[in-house]
Amino acid sequence: MATAVSPLAPRSVPQLPAIEGVRLATAAAGIRYANRTDVMLAVFEPGTTVAGVLTRSKCPSAPVEWCRAHIKAGRAAALVVNSGNANAFTGKNGRAATKLTAALAAKAVHCKPADVFLASTGVIGEPLDAGKFAGVMERLAADAQATDWLNAARSIMTTDTFPKLATASARLGKTHITINGFAKGAGMIAPDMGTMLAFVFTDAPIAAPALQALLKESVADTFNAVTVDGDTSTSDTLLVFATGTAARRGAPRIGRRSDPRLKGFRAAFQRVLADLAEQVARDGEGARKLVEVIVEGAVSKPSARRIARSIANSPLVKTAIAGEDANWGRVVMAVGKAGEPADRDRLSIWFGGIRVAHRGERDPSYDEAQVAAVMKKPEISLKVALGLGRGRDRVLTCDLTKEYVAINGDYRS
Amino acid sequence: MATAVSPLAPRSVPQLPAIEGVRLATAAAGIRYANRTDVMLAVFEPGTTVAGVLTRSKCPSAPVEWCRAHIKAGRAAALVVNSGNANAFTGKNGRAATKLTAALAAKAVHCKPADVFLASTGVIGEPLDAGKFAGVMERLAADAQATDWLNAARSIMTTDTFPKLATASARLGKTHITINGFAKGAGMIAPDMGTMLAFVFTDAPIAAPALQALLKESVADTFNAVTVDGDTSTSDTLLVFATGTAARRGAPRIGRRSDPRLKGFRAAFQRVLADLAEQVARDGEGARKLVEVIVEGAVSKPSARRIARSIANSPLVKTAIAGEDANWGRVVMAVGKAGEPADRDRLSIWFGGIRVAHRGERDPSYDEAQVAAVMKKPEISLKVALGLGRGRDRVLTCDLTKEYVAINGDYRS
Repeated sequence: MATAVSPLAPRSVPQLPAIEGVRLATAAAGIRYANRTDVMLAVFEPGTTVAGVLTRSKCPSAPVEWCRAHIKAGRAAALVVNSGNANAFTGKNGRAATKLTAALAAKAVHCKPADVFLASTGVIGEPLDAGKFAGVMERLAADAQATDWLNAARSIMTTDTFPKLATASARLGKTHITINGFAKGAGMIAPDMGTMLAFVFTDAPIAAPALQALLKESVADTFNAVTVDGDTSTSDTLLVFATGTAARRGAPRIGRRSDPRLKGFRAAFQRVLADLAEQVARDGEGARKLVEVIVEGAVSKPSARRIARSIANSPLVKTAIAGEDANWGRVVMAVGKAGEPADRDRLSIWFGGIRVAHRGERDPSYDEAQVAAVMKKPEISLKVALGLGRGRDRVLTCDLTKEYVAINGDYRS
Repeated sequence: MATAVSPLAPRSVPQLPAIEGVRLATAAAGIRYANRTDVMLAVFEPGTTVAGVLTRSKCPSAPVEWCRAHIKAGRAAALVVNSGNANAFTGKNGRAATKLTAALAAKAVHCKPADVFLASTGVIGEPLDAGKFAGVMERLAADAQATDWLNAARSIMTTDTFPKLATASARLGKTHITINGFAKGAGMIAPDMGTMLAFVFTDAPIAAPALQALLKESVADTFNAVTVDGDTSTSDTLLVFATGTAARRGAPRIGRRSDPRLKGFRAAFQRVLADLAEQVARDGEGARKLVEVIVEGAVSKPSARRIARSIANSPLVKTAIAGEDANWGRVVMAVGKAGEPADRDRLSIWFGGIRVAHRGERDPSYDEAQVAAVMKKPEISLKVALGLGRGRDRVLTCDLTKEYVAINGDYRS
């Protein structure tokens, strides 16, 4: 397993302020790891609303099914996240484990089990012994504090090499509101681990349907625009909790996503999601380069997205970038296989702002040394102009290195 | 570049018999490589029919466009294949190079340029200097022999680690007919190379439309059921030439694919394509395991194909197999992300005939040691039963090793 911190890790970890109505605590329940925390409880004030997006996998984990069943009510009292065991492909046992975990948390925080949200990350196919949470939940509920963000982010890590936190603030009406978030892991992670998890918290008073609508619009260009290996986890979970406590300080209660007072909140929310999503790409397994893929001139934005994803998921493009090679031929290949309208003879391609191909041929004017210098950087922007329409999109990914293969294949050999 | 022969290479190279009406020759034209042949000419007797399938890439190479323009006439007099330069993304120069190559070959074999078929494999984005073929074509036409199959297969190799040949025979009416074929490279190949090429030859007298129909039906479960990295080359070309010379020995002339006399031919043809396609998978870059993915119980065959491809292209499944780990959780993940109907709780999964998961949970009865022994083998069969319907399909692939990344990423670092 990789233990060194990713060379693409942010230089500092942000300090997250308290959010009124959210308290956090972590503990070591001994699910799988020794000498580290592996369970996290967040307790919310009554009135907290919740929204979420969950994996589109047809084979989701038990906690994903739990969240899907309960999120429609839009009400949250607690969140329990464990690492070490993903509770995925555990059949009836898995459903029983989610039920037991929710019941234990509900008892500890005095709420209904349906108001407890769950996420699990770690080994798959092994039963989660939720009985281990029995004594733990009471203690967590008693210990929970408003400022334990970094510990919470750490407790949900599996093979992540750094904790991922983000914060932003905005005005809602005339009231200062805060948005905090933390996340773990990109795509399907290392040895038997499966999960991308992210949790976002705010004191803004936003009704659940509006929160869900905001989340849906914000996730498209943030988390859904990140890919590490194209492998969709069975556990992907992004939940947003709004305590509404800013209303006590005068913030207006928001019922509709179209409310113009959401402008500042919307921008801050998008920033937090984009920040966390980028950190996920920066911690892609074995990653040594952060790669931004921009496609413009496509017939539509969805078409640009599919082409950008085809490039970002191509093993040949990703290995070329690992090799610091501005291999635009492989980019053309990835455009060609995307199945979207494209005309070879109109294609132009840039690496780090230097045009290397123009109208389907090598650009005769580009300077090899300049491009070589660009390719050595840890962050590389790759732009493709199709020359067909106005569709534009952007996807973040990382390179494909021998370390990726080692992390995912070496553990038994 | 990898130079050692793939550990999955067939133990022997088949001896291909002559096919009346086909003569072959190879030469070193100095396109890119030193001290090796890099151009091949096949000359066909008048009356030879042709069929082909070409890459679906929206950004095909110039020779692919040439073949696409001329294949409809169904008539072939010659085939020219060069290695070292793929003549892809070369714009107007590329079109001029195909025109010149066809003109030179046409002059040498006394035919129309439109009856010359072309394929190129090698570096992309660099102009192909077809002028180098000027003196060479006359010599090739003069030298061409009926028995030069192994040399022909060798001349089209790029980073292939072994030549790929196959042969089969059958009865057409009461006449013995032969089918020979050779191929190169899987998916998008190593440093700047792009191409899967395959050429099949027979003396059976089959009209072009029937040949095309036969090819289309046979390719679905052979070449189109192989994947190395999911990256579709811009140059993929599979051409079939039927000289019809077996008619002289009494073979009936076939005009329709539904002709019942095609039964033996059809089976032999399918065997040759399947053999070549499997060799392509056996020479996947860095491959150390040949992996057969079988999906059954899907709602339809296309659905089974999409799920099998999702498994076969998953970096996490492929790295697990490289690590000799029967990681069925990753298989469930790949089933889940395929977007096809699937029910987690009905899934069963086998590695090498041993059931490791049943109804969405680990099969409690399987023996870890037995599975470990299966995973150590160079050929691994992975079966998924969905329990939904009768759709079944099979895809061949290989594992994803550090060598793949090295071959595709190390060349500049």
